[in-house]
Amino acid sequence: MKNEAHEQGVLVRPRIHIGDDIEIGPGKIDLLCHVADGQSISAAARSLGMTYKRAWLLIDTLNQGFGRPVVETTSGGKGGGGSRLTPLGEALVARYQALEAKLSQAAQPELDALCALAK
Amino acid sequence: MKNEAHEQGVLVRPRIHIGDDIEIGPGKIDLLCHVADGQSISAAARSLGMTYKRAWLLIDTLNQGFGRPVVETTSGGKGGGGSRLTPLGEALVARYQALEAKLSQAAQPELDALCALAK
Repeated sequence: MKNEAHEQGVLVRPRIHIGDDIEIGPGKIDLLCHVADGQSISAAARSLGMTYKRAWLLIDTLNQGFGRPVVETTSGGKGGGGSRLTPLGEALVARYQALEAKLSQAAQPELDALCALAK
Repeated sequence: MKNEAHEQGVLVRPRIHIGDDIEIGPGKIDLLCHVADGQSISAAARSLGMTYKRAWLLIDTLNQGFGRPVVETTSGGKGGGGSRLTPLGEALVARYQALEAKLSQAAQPELDALCALAK
């Protein structure tokens, strides 16, 4: 799952809290994108430099927060099983990326003012 | 330094990268706000549940990133010295909060769509 906003050099990546139980930020979204790409939690963890346990815990906090899974794991079969995003997981990534794109466009003047402090 | 956006129940707190050297997110901004309130890095660290060392390192990464300090420390004097935001530090907090308010307002439809996934 390509993140087109990134390719445009976007700098705002929001962290969103929904109620007390759900926290969604760039780390979890990147993890879900990597799971979607490689169909594997362990490969996703590896490419992000985190342990499998941490990746699994991050995903599980989402599963628990939403009360239903964002990643589903299939065991066995021809490919030896793997993991993939559920429709909820896919919607979550898509909604987050839409938000990210909207924010980055809307906030350009404020972003420019902030960046000007570094000059 | 009160964060009025928080009081309105805002849920988007951006993390901003300026070049390779500056990363500004809610943690550093909260820390700066606490330093401004208490005029002390150690009191700010304590109230945020972090060590003095971590608080100092977070502030120093900003100082280094901007190439000039966001917090200045005065030693001795009647109050035994303390720390306060520099004009740059104050501008940084103000610009971040303006961005946060703008984002939260601009992104309401996308936020609503994201929150609807949790229902």
